[in-house]
Amino acid sequence: MKKAKWIWYPGEFEIYHHMLLSFRRQEKGCDYPCVWHVSRPEVNVRFRKRFTAARDGVFTAVTRGRGMVRLGGRLYPVNEPISVKAGTYDISAELFDINAFPALFIDSDVLKTDESWLTDPFDAAPVPAACEPAFYSAADDPAVFPFAYRELSPAAAEPIKNGVLYDYGQEQFGPVRVTVPANAEITLVYGESRAEALDPENAVIRETLTAADAPERPARAFRYIAVLGEQAAQARLEARLEYLPIEDKASFSSDEPGLGDIWALCARTFHLNTREFFLDGIKRDRWVWSGDAYQSFMIARYLYNDPSVTERTIRALLGKPPYRLHVNTIVDYSAFLLISLWEHCEATGRVPFVRTVWENIKDLYAFMSSRWDAHTGYAVQREGDWIFVDCGVLDKDGPVCFEQIVLWKAHLAMAGLAAALGEPTRIYTECAEALRRNILRDFWDAEKGAFIDSFTSGRRFVTRQTNIFALLYGLVDGEKKQSVIRNALLNPELPAITTPYFKLYELLALCETGHVTAAQDYISSYWGGMLREGATSVWEAYDPTQTGAEHYAMYGSPYGKSLCHAWGSGPILLLCRYVAGVKQTGPDGAFRVAPAPGRYTSFEATVPVGKGDVCVRYQAPACTVQASVPGGVFFDGKTETPLTAGRTYTFIL
Amino acid sequence: MKKAKWIWYPGEFEIYHHMLLSFRRQEKGCDYPCVWHVSRPEVNVRFRKRFTAARDGVFTAVTRGRGMVRLGGRLYPVNEPISVKAGTYDISAELFDINAFPALFIDSDVLKTDESWLTDPFDAAPVPAACEPAFYSAADDPAVFPFAYRELSPAAAEPIKNGVLYDYGQEQFGPVRVTVPANAEITLVYGESRAEALDPENAVIRETLTAADAPERPARAFRYIAVLGEQAAQARLEARLEYLPIEDKASFSSDEPGLGDIWALCARTFHLNTREFFLDGIKRDRWVWSGDAYQSFMIARYLYNDPSVTERTIRALLGKPPYRLHVNTIVDYSAFLLISLWEHCEATGRVPFVRTVWENIKDLYAFMSSRWDAHTGYAVQREGDWIFVDCGVLDKDGPVCFEQIVLWKAHLAMAGLAAALGEPTRIYTECAEALRRNILRDFWDAEKGAFIDSFTSGRRFVTRQTNIFALLYGLVDGEKKQSVIRNALLNPELPAITTPYFKLYELLALCETGHVTAAQDYISSYWGGMLREGATSVWEAYDPTQTGAEHYAMYGSPYGKSLCHAWGSGPILLLCRYVAGVKQTGPDGAFRVAPAPGRYTSFEATVPVGKGDVCVRYQAPACTVQASVPGGVFFDGKTETPLTAGRTYTFIL
Repeated sequence: MKKAKWIWYPGEFEIYHHMLLSFRRQEKGCDYPCVWHVSRPEVNVRFRKRFTAARDGVFTAVTRGRGMVRLGGRLYPVNEPISVKAGTYDISAELFDINAFPALFIDSDVLKTDESWLTDPFDAAPVPAACEPAFYSAADDPAVFPFAYRELSPAAAEPIKNGVLYDYGQEQFGPVRVTVPANAEITLVYGESRAEALDPENAVIRETLTAADAPERPARAFRYIAVLGEQAAQARLEARLEYLPIEDKASFSSDEPGLGDIWALCARTFHLNTREFFLDGIKRDRWVWSGDAYQSFMIARYLYNDPSVTERTIRALLGKPPYRLHVNTIVDYSAFLLISLWEHCEATGRVPFVRTVWENIKDLYAFMSSRWDAHTGYAVQREGDWIFVDCGVLDKDGPVCFEQIVLWKAHLAMAGLAAALGEPTRIYTECAEALRRNILRDFWDAEKGAFIDSFTSGRRFVTRQTNIFALLYGLVDGEKKQSVIRNALLNPELPAITTPYFKLYELLALCETGHVTAAQDYISSYWGGMLREGATSVWEAYDPTQTGAEHYAMYGSPYGKSLCHAWGSGPILLLCRYVAGVKQTGPDGAFRVAPAPGRYTSFEATVPVGKGDVCVRYQAPACTVQASVPGGVFFDGKTETPLTAGRTYTFIL
Repeated sequence: MKKAKWIWYPGEFEIYHHMLLSFRRQEKGCDYPCVWHVSRPEVNVRFRKRFTAARDGVFTAVTRGRGMVRLGGRLYPVNEPISVKAGTYDISAELFDINAFPALFIDSDVLKTDESWLTDPFDAAPVPAACEPAFYSAADDPAVFPFAYRELSPAAAEPIKNGVLYDYGQEQFGPVRVTVPANAEITLVYGESRAEALDPENAVIRETLTAADAPERPARAFRYIAVLGEQAAQARLEARLEYLPIEDKASFSSDEPGLGDIWALCARTFHLNTREFFLDGIKRDRWVWSGDAYQSFMIARYLYNDPSVTERTIRALLGKPPYRLHVNTIVDYSAFLLISLWEHCEATGRVPFVRTVWENIKDLYAFMSSRWDAHTGYAVQREGDWIFVDCGVLDKDGPVCFEQIVLWKAHLAMAGLAAALGEPTRIYTECAEALRRNILRDFWDAEKGAFIDSFTSGRRFVTRQTNIFALLYGLVDGEKKQSVIRNALLNPELPAITTPYFKLYELLALCETGHVTAAQDYISSYWGGMLREGATSVWEAYDPTQTGAEHYAMYGSPYGKSLCHAWGSGPILLLCRYVAGVKQTGPDGAFRVAPAPGRYTSFEATVPVGKGDVCVRYQAPACTVQASVPGGVFFDGKTETPLTAGRTYTFIL
């Protein structure tokens, strides 16, 4: 018999947990609430189903909120047994939850809750209820996120001035239970680095506790914890790792020195940032940013090939209408959200998920459209907008070329989504085509052979950022594409990309245009450099010219830098997509294997595709390929060879 | 020095308390949650101010939520003292409150919170903060509504089978503290009538308690409470009246027998329903309905002349966008909300209040417009719409005339509001004029000399309801108006109005068209009849042909009828506006006194106008008038006499 599941209105679980998450950031003893509008769950929701009880029976409508059940013309309280005679009924459970979000659980012989129920928030059409696999018993509480926990033992406990320094060996995230001696006052200083834990004044996370405080402290990032105070040695610390159990489906090894450690570092970092949603970093901000998430979605498709965190993150970023400011207040980030959804849909074929967010997506697009320039269709800066693109030198005068390129891609994403849902696409494709024409007219500089950032400032400034996206999104091809590669991507005279965020896009563009070796060099020097500095997770940024605690400073604060930042996990994507060369090419499970060993002389990669995976083993010059599922082709740069599932092929590259 | 006040984003106090209120209804041991979408407060809000500290000082940003203070480039925790040096600062308090709504209180020599602060919910422009007079100390909690309380002593305690029946003498509303003997189980049965309290099976409110339950029971309506159980006599009951202290500014007395008691009954009923918002009734539904509230606004302008409850109620009804269904799901009720706001603005001149809700009002109007018939501009029934009008026989086929009349008035209301705010009005006046033309073309029946409900059904049915609103809103004048009066309002062949809700509109129309005596007759028979049946507050409905407990049944339930319903307080409005004849004629305090004694031979009325009042004393045939404020004119049906404030005038009617 089918299993009963806790059910709720689609998106409410994500909206609720995103709300909690958005207000957990702390800095220097202060709460640091999210600086944009955060959506709340609905307070009242209705759940309905027609069911047939084959025999007389009893069920209880379990909820952590309150409400009532309408059945056979009568009202019944929730959380108390309800008797029914055999027969067919229309049941409606009308629930409210002021503290969390309305959720329902019924598990009886006569009736069970699951996705076959319809639900509505009283002002929208009923849709199938949503659920999560972790919640299937009356004792479960969907308001508590189902993390897993593991006890952590410190690798070392070292006496320091006025206390004890615990070292948990590597970057961790989780709650700490502190037993404070009676009448004592102790201070906990969390450090991602030893220097941070030893610097109470400047550490990002610190707090002072007495025996009166709750012993279980909120989950936080740390490698080191300093316990300070006269009785610090008597205070007991029990730390636990809090994590989301999610399986790696990709692996990569090679004879390239250090590459195994780099992969492990990236995977570990990515797991630590894979929680309710894809976070930017686990110490700071612990918020959900659309640009960061966009990169995480790409990485996750290779490392996990599991849609759950991606879809939760899309729901969290999307929030609820009315949309009055851009996602994270950033113009490019609204566009990235639409593009993220389309790339997710294209890669996984999960059209039913798209359907559950489509109304909100259209509302967001309508909001975006309300802010375009009426004549050109350009995304321009309006009150409250942040034109982010990237930190670094960009010419943001007037309409910014980068914004138009991502908007052009967002129009195409909308067209793709609409097509997947069987809705008209012309409104989107026409916008895309008109915008493309305008971009080429206004931003293409024939003399410089590349796109300029701004045509209004007169500076005609060419940056890598803008041109990288022209390449990644395929805005140009043929001669113009070659010109962009030559005059922007590979032009040593242009300012270098300095942020790891944008560096990933640059590496993607290099790989896409055949410069895999350049990406490999960078992986070994940048990530390898961090490893040599003792990193146990990938830092938010790394500058090889710095030394010691200089590495930890950022945003004007000595330990402002996050030492565990999701966007640092890019090598997983680069190695799987370009070196092993595995790309999903359609939602029906089609994929293509086109390895580019670059400077590696051997490697072995397992990369998930559809419901299976493909194993690529390279030992120069031979490449062995075996896919567990059909739909693949091998491409050696000239010819395509279909891959039969389960068969092993050897190609000479 | 100015007083510090708790501040919040405008509307959040009302949204929060309306949310709580909407989920307090109970029926037969069941929670009975609101059956429409209810808005929640924002989770995060920012408060900002530039201030100058004349000398060094200390302040604390007090909140029941959490958050941080940004000041001079630093972050500070809330609820802890912050030291500032003398100087000028920009302060920003960024707060979140997952349980209630973000609110801030600062009271120090260097800084105080009040309406001079700006606030925004991170996705809208900053606006002046809102406050309520009850919250001005750090110990206050805006999440607790500031009701007043008074101990109640039962007028009688009578032994009944298996318990005790307490009679509190008249209709009450409030919490009851119950001390249940150890190991005992008792049942409370609340009764607005004795019969209800003695009928545990059918009473609307009942609950069974043990010593483990919280002794303080939620505030509920009752006159009687039966305590049942073996140890009922040992259970202790302490009841309190929970009420909103608000002063009566109107009074009316007369030699008409019983009229004093009717006025008192109506005033008492109205006070019991005047709480966070204007309720429909205090036993059931205890929700905020736009149609009911519309009548309460009219009554309140005379009885209280205090905008506070009206404005709270408008905010509660308006909720927040996105608007996806009509107010209370009822098409007419959305229109009534716009009309209510305009009539409130017109009568009080409170344009700053209008400004605070204008964006939402425009969103609601945009939602309404999205559902009109594209060709005719008619309000038609769409998915999820309830075309209510009134209970009783109406022809609701196709576009319903009544809906078009209130929509026409709503267009005019929008024009009035826009004009008050200095915004363009043409879009609204053009809609109104086009709609009026269509109404006259499609719904005016020249043969019947009145408006028909529907032109699509072919029945050409004339109802009082539709034609009453054509008169009240002035859709027609001259010959057509006289025809409507003759052929609808005074036509004995049309079905009678049977609901007290619509009866008030009918009485208003009768008075407006000079038939004050008919209204007076009805007041004495209907309200007088209820008094003779022992009513201590006005019932939801009254049918003089019923006897005994028949009076208490409604909606198929023996005690389904509310015995304390706000719409029953209409005589206050009728007596002040038509018999005393006092009408505010402009927001600048202009008013007109045109008494219509009807069949009363003497009366004395005090009626508030602007910031004062006007006293009208009638002893046939002389009428003495004295106004405490300027702006008045006296009208005897032929000529107007300006009234000087403070001077006494005598006119012969």
